[in-house]
Amino acid sequence: MILTVTLNTALDLTYGVPELVPHASHRVSDMSERPGGKGLNVARVLSALGHETVVTGFAGGSTGAVLRELLAGLSPLEAGPKAALPAAAPVTDALVTVAGNTRRTIAVVDRATGDTTQLNEPGPLITADEWAALLGRYEELLTGADAVALCGSLPPGIHVGAYGELVRLARTAGVPVLLDTSGEPLRRGIAARPDLIKPNADELAQLTGSREPLRATRDARRRGAHGVIASLGPDGMLAVTPDGIWQASPPAKVLGNPTGAGDSAVAGLLSGLVEGLSWPDRLRRAVALSTATVLSPTAGDFDRAAYEELLPRVGIEEHTAAA
Amino acid sequence: MILTVTLNTALDLTYGVPELVPHASHRVSDMSERPGGKGLNVARVLSALGHETVVTGFAGGSTGAVLRELLAGLSPLEAGPKAALPAAAPVTDALVTVAGNTRRTIAVVDRATGDTTQLNEPGPLITADEWAALLGRYEELLTGADAVALCGSLPPGIHVGAYGELVRLARTAGVPVLLDTSGEPLRRGIAARPDLIKPNADELAQLTGSREPLRATRDARRRGAHGVIASLGPDGMLAVTPDGIWQASPPAKVLGNPTGAGDSAVAGLLSGLVEGLSWPDRLRRAVALSTATVLSPTAGDFDRAAYEELLPRVGIEEHTAAA
Repeated sequence: MILTVTLNTALDLTYGVPELVPHASHRVSDMSERPGGKGLNVARVLSALGHETVVTGFAGGSTGAVLRELLAGLSPLEAGPKAALPAAAPVTDALVTVAGNTRRTIAVVDRATGDTTQLNEPGPLITADEWAALLGRYEELLTGADAVALCGSLPPGIHVGAYGELVRLARTAGVPVLLDTSGEPLRRGIAARPDLIKPNADELAQLTGSREPLRATRDARRRGAHGVIASLGPDGMLAVTPDGIWQASPPAKVLGNPTGAGDSAVAGLLSGLVEGLSWPDRLRRAVALSTATVLSPTAGDFDRAAYEELLPRVGIEEHTAAA
Repeated sequence: MILTVTLNTALDLTYGVPELVPHASHRVSDMSERPGGKGLNVARVLSALGHETVVTGFAGGSTGAVLRELLAGLSPLEAGPKAALPAAAPVTDALVTVAGNTRRTIAVVDRATGDTTQLNEPGPLITADEWAALLGRYEELLTGADAVALCGSLPPGIHVGAYGELVRLARTAGVPVLLDTSGEPLRRGIAARPDLIKPNADELAQLTGSREPLRATRDARRRGAHGVIASLGPDGMLAVTPDGIWQASPPAKVLGNPTGAGDSAVAGLLSGLVEGLSWPDRLRRAVALSTATVLSPTAGDFDRAAYEELLPRVGIEEHTAAA
């Protein structure tokens, strides 16, 4: 089982409008609602890859109830047309109930241009007792986990060193841990020595002060992360690991919606780790999944046929320099 | 008891953002949630004026449940500092439960400029059975009503002549009926001869083709409305009734948020009718309430002290021309 932790889950709403005009009134022409927060997105992709997944984190109030209802109703994703995708595995809800109301995020999509304007509620205030309940649930779940992903922002009330605490508990339990967050929570989490982090170029620059990918990625390793997979958007990924350095590139640049591409990459890396794949194979999967996510018409989902077509065509180049 | 009908109720969310930038991501800095839809706003003001009020219309799904919870928890509004405002009366929930999800409306307020960008979900699809249930509930409630207000837009699934049907049932029951809607539903509703309509300048122009207030208001009467109260924004109101024509003007132009000013005017007109006030007194109340609503820091609420101060200072001018 793979465990994903989403401390700041969200009910993700997408509103289509013919054209977004500031200070005007808009009738929403189409809308959708899905359970969100990075760890939930990762779980959804892991499920499609055939990995049994448990999600924990916080959910509460009326929006939390809707989120859990939608999570329970996630239609089992169809197996792909070829053997590369097995049957979907279940996603189990182990969220901790809190008194506050789970936040909503609203993506307003201008149907004329495809541009998105994002509005994110801050999330519920988490109490000390609720954080203690999460820690207890997390330690229990770690005993059955093959790997764990810690994903996304911290809700109000959670101390900035929270991810450091969760990383240490995973390491004590001997469970490989991937940390995917940004800013001070990332800086503090890295110091606890996670197995993997997966920053994008902006997050890396914020952490290290450098925009030069190899320099910044090596610097992030020196700060404590065992392996650093830098996601370079359309240029693919740069992996600096104890076993070597690789650059993985998609076969061609693609146009589409990058929402969720990073979460798909996390699912690719984590599933590859659990399956004992080599670094090049893990990176192939991560790049093919995130490219297939950009290509999907539904934000955050991935195009299964594109994934299977892309997988063997991802370019891998090994660097000879030491990590 | 005064009955208000809101066929397209809404959960009204207000999101404050430091500055709204299209195609960017925003963290919501402050937010509020209140039960909305024009008839619910009218009921809230009627309650503050001491009138027992019953609300009907449709509510459903998780947002409908939140709306009803908030409606039940509406804090009894405080009596004003002088005798002009009595103790608040209760608002009774007689909404019909539907299978669909009550819509949300989102007002994104740019805290730098105060400007509002509005996003309105379309509302749930109402089935023929749900409409029949509403008609049954409405006829029952009419037997105890002193007046009824029919307010706002029609949700999907409701035929465009729906307000005509509701106006006719009120007239058959001998209950004075005020219709406050726009477009084709207004045009069709007027033909059923409501006692009052309260269009603004845009709604009147859409209905009659004229932007000249007296001409357009008279034309609207000829189309079937017994009395037409045209709201002219900062210029006050023009009332063309079987008893005469009056122009009512606020003592001074005010700056503020006009959201809900029209609903407060409906509450002023309807309460004045039920209390047997003269036309000039009804208009004074309607203009003072809507001006005090513009002055309130909370959208849709009214400033009680301002209301009591404004009430005796509203200017009334009688036109000598025949209605």
